[in-house]
Amino acid sequence: MWRYLKRLLIGRPLKTTDAGGQSLTKFKALALLSSDALSSVAYGTEQITTVLFVLSAAATWYALPAVGIVLILLFAITMSYRQIINAYPSGGGAYVVATKNWGTSIGLIAGGSLLVDYMLTVAVSVTSGTEAITSAIPLLRPYSIGIAIFIVLFIMTLNLRGMKDSASFLTLPVYTFVIVLLGMLGWGLFNIATGKLTYHAAAPVGSAVPGMTLILFLRAFSAGSSSLTGVEAISNAVPNFRKPRRKNAANTLAIMAALLGMFLIGVTFLSYYLGVMPNPDETVLSQIGSAVFGKGIFYYLLQFSTALILAVAANTGFSAFPILAYNLAKDKFMPHMYMDKGDRLAYSNGVISLAVGAIVLILIFHGQTSLLIPLYAVGVFVPFTLSQSGMIIHWLRERGHNWVLNSLVNLLGAAISLALVVFLFWLHFSNVWPYLIIMLVLLAGFYKIHAHYTMVASQLRLNNEQAQLHDYSGATVIVLVSSVTHVTTGAINYARSIGDYVIAMHVSFDTNPKKEHETAKEFKDSFPDVRFVDLHSSYRSVAGPVLRFCDVIAKDSAKKNYSTTVLVPQFVPRKPWQNILHNQTSLRLRAVLNSRENIIVSTYSYHLKK
Amino acid sequence: MWRYLKRLLIGRPLKTTDAGGQSLTKFKALALLSSDALSSVAYGTEQITTVLFVLSAAATWYALPAVGIVLILLFAITMSYRQIINAYPSGGGAYVVATKNWGTSIGLIAGGSLLVDYMLTVAVSVTSGTEAITSAIPLLRPYSIGIAIFIVLFIMTLNLRGMKDSASFLTLPVYTFVIVLLGMLGWGLFNIATGKLTYHAAAPVGSAVPGMTLILFLRAFSAGSSSLTGVEAISNAVPNFRKPRRKNAANTLAIMAALLGMFLIGVTFLSYYLGVMPNPDETVLSQIGSAVFGKGIFYYLLQFSTALILAVAANTGFSAFPILAYNLAKDKFMPHMYMDKGDRLAYSNGVISLAVGAIVLILIFHGQTSLLIPLYAVGVFVPFTLSQSGMIIHWLRERGHNWVLNSLVNLLGAAISLALVVFLFWLHFSNVWPYLIIMLVLLAGFYKIHAHYTMVASQLRLNNEQAQLHDYSGATVIVLVSSVTHVTTGAINYARSIGDYVIAMHVSFDTNPKKEHETAKEFKDSFPDVRFVDLHSSYRSVAGPVLRFCDVIAKDSAKKNYSTTVLVPQFVPRKPWQNILHNQTSLRLRAVLNSRENIIVSTYSYHLKK
Repeated sequence: MWRYLKRLLIGRPLKTTDAGGQSLTKFKALALLSSDALSSVAYGTEQITTVLFVLSAAATWYALPAVGIVLILLFAITMSYRQIINAYPSGGGAYVVATKNWGTSIGLIAGGSLLVDYMLTVAVSVTSGTEAITSAIPLLRPYSIGIAIFIVLFIMTLNLRGMKDSASFLTLPVYTFVIVLLGMLGWGLFNIATGKLTYHAAAPVGSAVPGMTLILFLRAFSAGSSSLTGVEAISNAVPNFRKPRRKNAANTLAIMAALLGMFLIGVTFLSYYLGVMPNPDETVLSQIGSAVFGKGIFYYLLQFSTALILAVAANTGFSAFPILAYNLAKDKFMPHMYMDKGDRLAYSNGVISLAVGAIVLILIFHGQTSLLIPLYAVGVFVPFTLSQSGMIIHWLRERGHNWVLNSLVNLLGAAISLALVVFLFWLHFSNVWPYLIIMLVLLAGFYKIHAHYTMVASQLRLNNEQAQLHDYSGATVIVLVSSVTHVTTGAINYARSIGDYVIAMHVSFDTNPKKEHETAKEFKDSFPDVRFVDLHSSYRSVAGPVLRFCDVIAKDSAKKNYSTTVLVPQFVPRKPWQNILHNQTSLRLRAVLNSRENIIVSTYSYHLKK
Repeated sequence: MWRYLKRLLIGRPLKTTDAGGQSLTKFKALALLSSDALSSVAYGTEQITTVLFVLSAAATWYALPAVGIVLILLFAITMSYRQIINAYPSGGGAYVVATKNWGTSIGLIAGGSLLVDYMLTVAVSVTSGTEAITSAIPLLRPYSIGIAIFIVLFIMTLNLRGMKDSASFLTLPVYTFVIVLLGMLGWGLFNIATGKLTYHAAAPVGSAVPGMTLILFLRAFSAGSSSLTGVEAISNAVPNFRKPRRKNAANTLAIMAALLGMFLIGVTFLSYYLGVMPNPDETVLSQIGSAVFGKGIFYYLLQFSTALILAVAANTGFSAFPILAYNLAKDKFMPHMYMDKGDRLAYSNGVISLAVGAIVLILIFHGQTSLLIPLYAVGVFVPFTLSQSGMIIHWLRERGHNWVLNSLVNLLGAAISLALVVFLFWLHFSNVWPYLIIMLVLLAGFYKIHAHYTMVASQLRLNNEQAQLHDYSGATVIVLVSSVTHVTTGAINYARSIGDYVIAMHVSFDTNPKKEHETAKEFKDSFPDVRFVDLHSSYRSVAGPVLRFCDVIAKDSAKKNYSTTVLVPQFVPRKPWQNILHNQTSLRLRAVLNSRENIIVSTYSYHLKK
């Protein structure tokens, strides 16, 4: 049943060699990897105006210069990432670049930041997508957290099916959004030109705003820098591109940056021209859409495709997180289970961890995008800074063609990212401080895990000497008997096949001595040749007496150079649910006996026919 | 750590023979078993006036005749239960009496009702206790559900410590409540007599109330019948009494009924005389208390002791539920785990199930006592009816001394209980219907479990023939090898001690053929005498290839009359948390291999030193 359901939801398993086929064309890669960056237009402008609006409506014109600076940063960061694609075509992004150039500790800071950041990508995109839905359908507003969690689980399921399937599925919403948004900007500008959309700006560009300070401007601008998140996704996923990988990846990055720049400036201009103000119940994009299109079919198409591209953006996290977790696990900084590839080659454990993390974030922040954004931006710009500065080291070491120009480009990228991190900690500290705690915990975890794996490996290694073979003279087998049934018969038969000395052991509790001897008698009648030991427990515990007895026997066996096995007979019901109807004694006994190094625990399973 | 915590919270384990010492004096039994009935004074009167108040304030005088009838019922039911104590001194209550006299199906209806009823006892008592607290300290009102759940968990912990300890602990609150309530009634009546408390009744007794109907009166009266809940607790727990058991139990029942009667009529009279009206924010008892005592120390003592006795009342459920679950499990209608006695002889599984059930009820009904009460009353009066009518059958069959009189007493009890069940279904159907669904599910579960246990027993039974011994000619042992380490060495050594033919098996996935052959080479270098089989899996699954290979080997072994063992080596980290850092492959493999009847799965554990 479960197997069938899994197959239905997740699809048939793929062979290892199929992995090569999981490669992406530019067209698909744009859908799968650029949605995070492109969709940030749904909240980027809004973050800027929200900060400015706290001062006054007039101050919102400053959104235009703020977006202008964001665009410059976008250009610089795009250039730097094109260089990373060329230098590290095997992917891995900030974690790999920072580790290779800065060393392990800095690499782990980058890696840890990104792990958190991918969870925030999912959380921010999904909550923002939910806001797009509830802006269009106010009826759904009370259920927004539930809707957000549902979307996360839905995307998780898609990802457990494997990347290529998801990509085919996801091209449609991304390109729909691109077309609808281009349409809205075009139609908006056309109507402004023909005078059908009238000028409603709260204050003209350049007008003096009382109380406006540079710090407020920086606050607004740094909040808007969240629009730059997601730019790194393509450079992390170079190995997933169709060949020639570097070229395809670099070109996809350029296309994405151009689109994002157009969207940002267009949306910000329209919001300024139409005098749109931030409103907790309706997103800025929704307000622009209803002003440009009216509340007709195009408006709903805009909202719907916004929600969908944000869902696809959440998917970016699902593509990137498992790869990063895999890289960290391979380097022994995260549990091995992130290296287990599930069916369909998706890194199932990573996908599931990410979904759980995102849902926790959504619940903690009550599904409010604006509370998540500053944390999200820090999580992005810390690894940006580390990988860009790592690239400078790379160029200085390599000194290849054009190394001076290349390092200057990366220096610009690093400087901008560092400035943004400083601004975010300085001006948004009340939202950003959890980053410090999370990173401390993550780094401590990374090192603890690494130390454990190193220690285990050194203990298990055979050190090139020949294995120490030991020849036992024989084997003692202790069979636990609760009552004399077909299970006992089977277990005794098996025990005699592996053991040279077989003992049956029974624990009795009944204060009624008659019943106590009944099992002993029954057993001796059925198996006259097997030694039977009856332990009496005055406490109602099986584990204690069994353990004490087995220890004694194991000691005796060792003297005779015998190995010691404890055979726990159990019966297996036909249906799994029926297991809860039977005593879990055998489970408990196995757990207790496993604590003994000189005792091997074996289970004899008798399968019920009906 | 866990062991230590458990010991600290639950105490040291008791020997089986200590069970006799767990017996109760009348003084303690009254505390432990009567609190449910006595504490119902905290909500009984309020249930009646709440129904009447829906019509008008004037209608509330009808609470007096309603309580009068409840008192008559109390007398009749007490008489009937004294007879049950004498006839069935081994306890078990309605389930035993109904099963013995009516047959299994009716017995199960009684038993199922009581299981649900005990959960409701806990839920109602705890929510009502919480209301006593929030009436006195309105600040705590927003946290009432949290407080209720905390109280349930606290009582659960006490009960996991064993009954006698709980009893000593619980005598104080019960007797405090009895004294405080007697004091309140006495002081109230004294002040009425001296004219210090003035008459505020909304309407004098006997005044005509427009709109008053017999149906409304019956509705009010049947809601008030919830005061009779808990009367059966003593008759169910006769075996826990100190000898002479019957006499002590019967006398305790009589004392309890007298106190309850006094409390009910006193509280109802004061509420009438003082014109107290039901109020969702303050209980009736709290209003009476503040009118009689003023908001001083005595008022807070009243509220506090009310909350405490209600907590003790919840404890009644904890004493009774595990005994009933034990009886049902012994008769194979509930899972065997309810027969597992934990440390300290408390039936831990029953205690925990009850706590979980009560918490679920509190959450479903948002901690509102009045919504829980009608369901509670049905859960009580159905088994009352069945056990009382069962007693009639008992007397008719026995025809002992005074059998006619005895059966008339029980006939009265049965008739009253049946009438109450009819009233509750007729007049409170909107609150009571879940009872029908719960009972259907429970009964289906009982029968399904019974059928399963019967079937299993018949399959395992040896049918008195001699056990079929089978002599194997030898043993094949398959050792799973993932890499060549100290774990492998130990496992191979052990395998050779139990097996006549040892095969090492390795599954490789790597598409890189070089690495694939590395393990094979390493193994052959270390263990030149052991056969090594390298399976290649093109899917990233270990389980499939292992299972197929083991099936082939098991078939060959069977031909040679060999048994087949699969040895799964694993290493055990020093600290349990470290287990999550290692592949759960061995766990999965064991689960899969356990599905094969002809393969015995054994685990070789290598213990890490650091």
